[in-house]
Amino acid sequence: MAAIPILVNGEAGEQIPVLDRGFQYGDGLFETIRVDGGAPEFWDRHMARLAFGCARLAIPAPDAALLRREAMRLCEGAGDGVLKIIVTRGIGGRGYNPAGAASPSRVVALHPAPDHPESFAREGVRLHLCETRLSDQPRLAGLKHLNRLEQVLARSEWSDAETAEGLMCDGADAAIEGTMSNLFLIHGGEIHTPDLARCGVAGIMRAVVLEMARGMGFSVKTRRVARAEVDEADEVFVTNSVIGIWPVRALGERKLRRGPITAELVEALARLRQDRADAARA
Amino acid sequence: MAAIPILVNGEAGEQIPVLDRGFQYGDGLFETIRVDGGAPEFWDRHMARLAFGCARLAIPAPDAALLRREAMRLCEGAGDGVLKIIVTRGIGGRGYNPAGAASPSRVVALHPAPDHPESFAREGVRLHLCETRLSDQPRLAGLKHLNRLEQVLARSEWSDAETAEGLMCDGADAAIEGTMSNLFLIHGGEIHTPDLARCGVAGIMRAVVLEMARGMGFSVKTRRVARAEVDEADEVFVTNSVIGIWPVRALGERKLRRGPITAELVEALARLRQDRADAARA
Repeated sequence: MAAIPILVNGEAGEQIPVLDRGFQYGDGLFETIRVDGGAPEFWDRHMARLAFGCARLAIPAPDAALLRREAMRLCEGAGDGVLKIIVTRGIGGRGYNPAGAASPSRVVALHPAPDHPESFAREGVRLHLCETRLSDQPRLAGLKHLNRLEQVLARSEWSDAETAEGLMCDGADAAIEGTMSNLFLIHGGEIHTPDLARCGVAGIMRAVVLEMARGMGFSVKTRRVARAEVDEADEVFVTNSVIGIWPVRALGERKLRRGPITAELVEALARLRQDRADAARA
Repeated sequence: MAAIPILVNGEAGEQIPVLDRGFQYGDGLFETIRVDGGAPEFWDRHMARLAFGCARLAIPAPDAALLRREAMRLCEGAGDGVLKIIVTRGIGGRGYNPAGAASPSRVVALHPAPDHPESFAREGVRLHLCETRLSDQPRLAGLKHLNRLEQVLARSEWSDAETAEGLMCDGADAAIEGTMSNLFLIHGGEIHTPDLARCGVAGIMRAVVLEMARGMGFSVKTRRVARAEVDEADEVFVTNSVIGIWPVRALGERKLRRGPITAELVEALARLRQDRADAARA
């Protein structure tokens, strides 16, 4: 495995202190950013979410310009990859009590782009229906925080390479999201995605797709989605910042319909990315 | 602040790799062990809980004899303190997927004993009623895992030094535990503690107190405890491995009764600790 370039508080390094609250308690947040030809995609949106998460957890947000410089030190000339930024509350406080924590830690790491089969994006993916449920926690819902054991347990439920993602529900059988992606349903020509007020991560690609779909004239709804609705949807797809949009062709053994609206959105996203790349070069 | 002696995978050090899944996802467990005159207390119970947690998360448990040697390297001659052991899934896997994680990491650290006022144990403590709820997650309930943001948020809710602990409820107003302790109620001469099948940490001191109380002839019940019952209980106390037993004298502004059964248990725990210390020296 090639070494992954990492900056820890601005210095090249591979380690963080054991006493960092990120390690002790998962007391922090992260962002996972697609890097395309050396450029981090949707940077401003990722920074806005990070700042929002920091505010919610009362962690002082890192200086965005500083983080940008650090990100570019790793990304420039690096081609494609995935930039992961971790911000924690740092060292200090007394036990769980964060009062007195000295200063936040920031870690910027450039991982290789994942080697998902091209067929996932083109032909769609199979989802496993996870037994592990997402727990209700309105105070953390929407945030991309470092407490990710539910996702680890859910992702441990299957091992076949044919299954690309798992669908996670809450305790009341509402479909919420994938282990690493957000969920969308097409329903009578409308685009629906689960409400994330009580659990789930408010993905950047989810926001991009919602905005894009509205701009294309689709009616878009954020609402409770019952688990059973996924089987009956006209189309289903999942999104995240790295994969973009994956059509869903099966949930477990059950085949799902695939169709034109997902394809339209996939094309629109490709155009949006191309336009942004052209604009950045101009 | 004096340096805290730490062993990382058996070597003196203060750092762990950024890529460790403990840091990336909180993918691990910990134990917090009272050290009394250089001896870790209830060692076998802590090791049994750690092994149980590892089995539940499918993390290979560290060799207990090796961990014991590492603990004793730090504790011998060190007087009183708190030994914290962290075990994580280590480095590897792909994203949340733990398959392929190379080998678990273990961190052993000896922290100073906390300087809680003596009055907490003698005269009892005030609890803050936390607004942050514990979320339902049967797959993690009972475990002392590294996903502790709920506790961090709950502990952030108060800052006055007079309030020693916070009472946390679940989403259905059942009283579950403190932010760092377990909860007990005395009810008509019986000893009741909340059931932890859906959330909460199954504390070592909780188990010790339950066993001790049974041995003393008390009727002991583990059951759902409604939040409102705490106000009406004959006596209330909280426990953890480091503090032992703290009587509770108030919940917010509401005074709670204090009484003889808590005092009896405090004495019995002191005797048990003395007997064990004597036996260890014999």
